[in-house]
Amino acid sequence: MKNYIAEFIGTALLLAIVAGSGLMGETLGAGNSAVALLGNSIATGAGLYVLITLLGPISGAHFNPVVSVMFWRLGHLNAGQMLGYWVAQCSGAITGIWMTHLMFSLPIIQESTKTRTGMGIWASELISTLVLLVVIRLGDKEAKDRVPMLVALTVTAGYWFTSSTFFANPAVAIARSLTNTFVGIAPADVSGFVIAEIVAVAIFATLFCKKHGQIKPNHGV
Amino acid sequence: MKNYIAEFIGTALLLAIVAGSGLMGETLGAGNSAVALLGNSIATGAGLYVLITLLGPISGAHFNPVVSVMFWRLGHLNAGQMLGYWVAQCSGAITGIWMTHLMFSLPIIQESTKTRTGMGIWASELISTLVLLVVIRLGDKEAKDRVPMLVALTVTAGYWFTSSTFFANPAVAIARSLTNTFVGIAPADVSGFVIAEIVAVAIFATLFCKKHGQIKPNHGV
Amino acid sequence: MKNYIAEFIGTALLLAIVAGSGLMGETLGAGNSAVALLGNSIATGAGLYVLITLLGPISGAHFNPVVSVMFWRLGHLNAGQMLGYWVAQCSGAITGIWMTHLMFSLPIIQESTKTRTGMGIWASELISTLVLLVVIRLGDKEAKDRVPMLVALTVTAGYWFTSSTFFANPAVAIARSLTNTFVGIAPADVSGFVIAEIVAVAIFATLFCKKHGQIKPNHGV
Amino acid sequence: MKNYIAEFIGTALLLAIVAGSGLMGETLGAGNSAVALLGNSIATGAGLYVLITLLGPISGAHFNPVVSVMFWRLGHLNAGQMLGYWVAQCSGAITGIWMTHLMFSLPIIQESTKTRTGMGIWASELISTLVLLVVIRLGDKEAKDRVPMLVALTVTAGYWFTSSTFFANPAVAIARSLTNTFVGIAPADVSGFVIAEIVAVAIFATLFCKKHGQIKPNHGV
Repeated sequence: MKNYIAEFIGTALLLAIVAGSGLMGETLGAGNSAVALLGNSIATGAGLYVLITLLGPISGAHFNPVVSVMFWRLGHLNAGQMLGYWVAQCSGAITGIWMTHLMFSLPIIQESTKTRTGMGIWASELISTLVLLVVIRLGDKEAKDRVPMLVALTVTAGYWFTSSTFFANPAVAIARSLTNTFVGIAPADVSGFVIAEIVAVAIFATLFCKKHGQIKPNHGV
Repeated sequence: MKNYIAEFIGTALLLAIVAGSGLMGETLGAGNSAVALLGNSIATGAGLYVLITLLGPISGAHFNPVVSVMFWRLGHLNAGQMLGYWVAQCSGAITGIWMTHLMFSLPIIQESTKTRTGMGIWASELISTLVLLVVIRLGDKEAKDRVPMLVALTVTAGYWFTSSTFFANPAVAIARSLTNTFVGIAPADVSGFVIAEIVAVAIFATLFCKKHGQIKPNHGV
Repeated sequence: MKNYIAEFIGTALLLAIVAGSGLMGETLGAGNSAVALLGNSIATGAGLYVLITLLGPISGAHFNPVVSVMFWRLGHLNAGQMLGYWVAQCSGAITGIWMTHLMFSLPIIQESTKTRTGMGIWASELISTLVLLVVIRLGDKEAKDRVPMLVALTVTAGYWFTSSTFFANPAVAIARSLTNTFVGIAPADVSGFVIAEIVAVAIFATLFCKKHGQIKPNHGV
Repeated sequence: MKNYIAEFIGTALLLAIVAGSGLMGETLGAGNSAVALLGNSIATGAGLYVLITLLGPISGAHFNPVVSVMFWRLGHLNAGQMLGYWVAQCSGAITGIWMTHLMFSLPIIQESTKTRTGMGIWASELISTLVLLVVIRLGDKEAKDRVPMLVALTVTAGYWFTSSTFFANPAVAIARSLTNTFVGIAPADVSGFVIAEIVAVAIFATLFCKKHGQIKPNHGV
């Protein structure tokens, strides 16, 4: 149970950091969105380092359904646990958005109107997700104690070098459709992001995972 | 005695960094407050890393009355020591503000006119304080040598994702009412912050502290 | 083979980070190029830390033909391997630029019109390359586990303190001529950069390398 | 001899980073000096981490006459070595300024016209120098492998929270009078800075150094 709570709290705080810092940057940034993105990316990287360091030992600090898929394919989670993680992550992500609205005295229930769509953005999201999975997997194997720093800096850089600003996370995509602020995404555009992320994890699993799930179909659940 | 001096100096320098960097950002920032907040949050994080690394071995580097309450509840301080820490922290914090005014050739005695009030901000302050306490406590248990980095990055992110900009510290709230610059808080609004911070430490103690203070009421003092 | 693939992927991602973050900063920066350079330099440093940490154990994480020349002179690579590295690095760099254009829905094939020429800039590029080589060499000898951080921070600082913005890499110079965005360099100016970089590695080899290549001319290939 | 060369090169590069990044920020910053200071402080911190990590094992990485005074008082250097360090540091600092002018195609010989004077600024410079010395001394004793990070972050924060922007270094003050750019200081104002720095090291020595130099007057030289 402790691991589901860790995933819930971690994902909630991650989204509060993402949305809150974006909102703060947009509000104070006097129309210079690059300054807002600086605050947004630095805060998110800083927060991720803390969350992964502290919650990693408890739940693995996935905070992300496709990361949980990867660890299920690698045999670290069984299918039931993966589903539990998904529920914790999605509900946590939405809670984090609402926490931000509460803190900034905004209407709790919102819907984004920010368009994020098109081939370039989908390609960006596919690349982002692949990069994230490879960083976590390689980091886990070769530099385990540096994983918090590796993931934090990957996301900080990712905000800047991808046109989709590196969501790489279906729970994040869903939750960010519920805020009409700097980091929002129109609900209609969520499916494009989620599909790109799923394609990425499928490519990753095909290339890098020994078909654990297929060889031992009864493992877990 | 050495520990009280460390708390005094550490809190003084912390406040000098908070107030000085805010003032510098506001003065140079050409009306873009997000740029000021970037300088403010980066300088505060950088300074906290240094202060906690160097003074942690001497006093624990609390710099914060509610952190001292937590360590009292955990049995690391007795009530008399906690009171001594409070005095050192509050006098240090005020000294730090005055040091900033001295360095920037401003009137030493000031009173802030910046309004920071409302349900959202109080909720933000309660969440901030809870996050800070959990980070320190979990960090202490699971990643002791990373505590300086964990706290520094928590505060850097906190400046950005909370509407109250993460005071999370009654000594800081009191001292910042004495400067009419970027980081000020109107004296009338201090009590709201302090109450939220006290509620947070009460929640934390209820959830996470084995009732040490109550079981051994004669411990210390 | 694995090492050539690592060099290809690492250099591709490096260039995607350099070009993508520059483009993002320029697009959002409301005409303030210093803000764009902040995003550009922070993202590049963050990305380099990740790429060197993860790919260093596989290929050495050169991502740079003159770095490969240095390691050839030091006897870590033979001439054939060096040539293989060059091919991987140059093709990777160009691929990274195209990946950025793809993600941002820009024409894939571009040509920069940004002038970067003159004695000052060539001197800057010579100094940049010398600094980079010394940092990698000294770091390798005295603080091996800190090399990713040392190189990342050298480049982050280098973007700011040199007039050429610290290319220090012929593959980067060539690839950046193929993008007409923030980080571009006019094709006519590439040769000046590459010559300065080659002069730097020649100076470095003369001063610091025991003439390995000349003593054992048959080593490798 | 190697240690003097390390001090010369380290101080030269430090000044090139300080002056070059300030100039870059000022040139690109579209009149927002806070953005320039962000680039300036991040680049300086990044560069200091690299220089201290790599040159610390060779010369101690003082790059600063008052730091050398401290280590002389602590018995780590004799008076002759201290004088040698001073010469290396001052000539290196000036060389670094000239290197920047060369790279940016500016007149090599310049004289600053920027006024930096007054009680507040002198107090700031005294506090800055005391803080720097205490950080180096405490860091050396309690967290030796973190000294590069501690000094780097102290200076990054120092740029922001002090009105004098944390010179804390007579060689830096002298050299910066020779550039009429963002980081310059009018020659007439240098003596005020140097006196404040000397007073700081005298206070430090009185408070913290066992009178080594006086007890063993024949030690060294």
